[in-house]
Amino acid sequence: MDIVVLKFGGTSVAGLERMRRVLAIVKREVAAGHKVAVVLSAMSGETNRLLTQAQEFSPEPDPAELDVLVTTGEQISVALFAMLCKDAGLAARSLLGYQIPIDTSCEFGRARILNIDADKFRNHFADHDVLAVAGFQGCDCNGRLTTLGRGGSDTSAVALAAAIRARVCDIYTDVPGVFTTDPNICPEARKLAHISYDEMLEMASQGAKVLQIRSVEFAKKYNVKVHVRSTFSDEPGTIVSQEDQSMEAVLVSGVALDRNQCRVTVYDVLDQPGIASSIFGPLAKEGVLVDMIIQNTSRDGHTDMTFTIPKIDLKKTLTILEEVQKRIGAKEIQHDVGVCKVSVIGVGMRNHSGVASRAFESLANENVNILMISTSEIKITCLIEDKYAELAVRTLHEAFQLDKEPNERVCEL
Amino acid sequence: MDIVVLKFGGTSVAGLERMRRVLAIVKREVAAGHKVAVVLSAMSGETNRLLTQAQEFSPEPDPAELDVLVTTGEQISVALFAMLCKDAGLAARSLLGYQIPIDTSCEFGRARILNIDADKFRNHFADHDVLAVAGFQGCDCNGRLTTLGRGGSDTSAVALAAAIRARVCDIYTDVPGVFTTDPNICPEARKLAHISYDEMLEMASQGAKVLQIRSVEFAKKYNVKVHVRSTFSDEPGTIVSQEDQSMEAVLVSGVALDRNQCRVTVYDVLDQPGIASSIFGPLAKEGVLVDMIIQNTSRDGHTDMTFTIPKIDLKKTLTILEEVQKRIGAKEIQHDVGVCKVSVIGVGMRNHSGVASRAFESLANENVNILMISTSEIKITCLIEDKYAELAVRTLHEAFQLDKEPNERVCEL
Repeated sequence: MDIVVLKFGGTSVAGLERMRRVLAIVKREVAAGHKVAVVLSAMSGETNRLLTQAQEFSPEPDPAELDVLVTTGEQISVALFAMLCKDAGLAARSLLGYQIPIDTSCEFGRARILNIDADKFRNHFADHDVLAVAGFQGCDCNGRLTTLGRGGSDTSAVALAAAIRARVCDIYTDVPGVFTTDPNICPEARKLAHISYDEMLEMASQGAKVLQIRSVEFAKKYNVKVHVRSTFSDEPGTIVSQEDQSMEAVLVSGVALDRNQCRVTVYDVLDQPGIASSIFGPLAKEGVLVDMIIQNTSRDGHTDMTFTIPKIDLKKTLTILEEVQKRIGAKEIQHDVGVCKVSVIGVGMRNHSGVASRAFESLANENVNILMISTSEIKITCLIEDKYAELAVRTLHEAFQLDKEPNERVCEL
Repeated sequence: MDIVVLKFGGTSVAGLERMRRVLAIVKREVAAGHKVAVVLSAMSGETNRLLTQAQEFSPEPDPAELDVLVTTGEQISVALFAMLCKDAGLAARSLLGYQIPIDTSCEFGRARILNIDADKFRNHFADHDVLAVAGFQGCDCNGRLTTLGRGGSDTSAVALAAAIRARVCDIYTDVPGVFTTDPNICPEARKLAHISYDEMLEMASQGAKVLQIRSVEFAKKYNVKVHVRSTFSDEPGTIVSQEDQSMEAVLVSGVALDRNQCRVTVYDVLDQPGIASSIFGPLAKEGVLVDMIIQNTSRDGHTDMTFTIPKIDLKKTLTILEEVQKRIGAKEIQHDVGVCKVSVIGVGMRNHSGVASRAFESLANENVNILMISTSEIKITCLIEDKYAELAVRTLHEAFQLDKEPNERVCEL
């Protein structure tokens, strides 16, 4: 039994006409002799509508009840799609998260998938060709409904593909694939034929919205080949998979931009052991994700601590730091929301030096001042002033010849 | 543990302000030391919205998937209400049909409740004061979602009350109780303090919309006292319960009107054994509920067959009868949609004669021609021309002095 897993996002299921397009794709797979598990999101706008409704009823809605509310979005999608399938003569039915079941942890609103009953799921194919699976949802060990966090339908699809050992997980979306960078910023951006899990993880964590980051982690962990492609075109998209020989030959795969970060500096703290944890401990405890961190060289036994956090956590962070400031006797706390992060990403840089210096040099040539730098094995990130965001992306894209096919690039370094 | 079961209909939960009113009632019960099971319908309009959406996707939606779709209505109600309860400091949670579980038959769209796990349900009260139960829904033996048919939340509430042996089941609605007749037609209509199950069944089957008929059957079967009352007033409503002494003293309890019937006549059929079944058999097979039936006295070995059916089944009925006509050689088939049924209902008429003749006489006095008559132990029904509907209701209401309290009525017969 050859099972394929397809996932369609909110824009792909928004309304009858678009669902008919989904139906055509599913019919094509059935005609090719496949059994089809089709994971659907809520129609675009529906989840936001439900969240707004919740907000009206409760300023801080109970997380468990919020999940009961928002899971109706996917429930509606799968019911309507299963109707379409039946009318088209397909042996189809809907499956909600708890019906499979998709067992999750009980962290409502951001539950993790613990187990999927793959045998029970496969058994449904005995008398069905198409199973319309509600994405984004599962249930905890008490049978309460849970959700997997924003974009969680990607994770549902990949986890299902992993559980049943599907050949591939097709993520259909409203873009043609993963690009070297955001085409809205850089018209020369090129669709990637392949990208490795690690690169995709970096792209996703740096603001590329094509795949939910946890779905990529899942795909990597269980080695699920993911095909990101457009619902509205038959063109192949981007394959996300393990690194292979051809990938290693590519120095840089993409340039990512993240405009959701801001910078905070704690000035003039006593440079002594434990000072970092006295600042970052309280932040971690309240769930603030600190990204880049720089500790200045000590002057007179004092130092400055600069770091970035998500903009939406700024207010919370400043409240926490007020307390911290009193305790550690820091002189001043400043913040700056007019910053952004640009990153150059590529598994190839593992084996090459010189990528960082070319990145810095190209930015310098355009007079873009670099405020902070962080690097990993496969990524170089620069914090810069936000006004230079688009310029920096285009500059880096050009510097690494990302508009060209990898084999057409002139000797890279 | 003193558990009360409250049920609130669609108009009672339509929007934040109205749900706050529901919350106030629930808080009052909790303050009185009760554990509260509160069964909610979908917000008014929501179920119709979902049905319209289904219709857009499929002219005849798959019944199983339709249930997956429409159960979201109640799911949204209970999630939002549970949020309100939590914010008000109540230990509350939502419970969907399959979570209780409410086991039903697998007739999607009109499932019957088979079992409710009362112990499991009661156990939820160990750490909750309020359980917000989604009405109208259950699940079949395969774990698929089912619904109980229009108005099914009444049945959910009564069945739950029966299962946990609650003292009373309060059905909160947008009217103050059960009336002697429709107050929109007869301003003298009076709210009944009590009504027996049997009378309520007749009232409901004759078009009174206050309670779903199956909920009354359930209440009767398990002897659950039902209190029908208004969400928007603290006045007591109508108690539906077993007959008692005081009820027997009342001759007539109410007058009901049903405008959804039409009349069909099959002319000049051979009067021989089996002729009735050759007409009504095919109709029953297609699910057409035939109500009143008259077979004329035979002339020359031929007879006419007149009966009433729901207006919505007229087209289907005529198609079926065309076939029947050919087979049995009937001369002609006519139909009339300009008719209605008025009924006089009361358990007291079991022990009294003369009710029928007074009903006929009072209609005759107003020149209302009676087209068909049917009677039962506790009901007299007349089919009349629809144009006389309101006049007939008012006439019968007055003839039996229903505007007066029972003990103020002048010697009735």
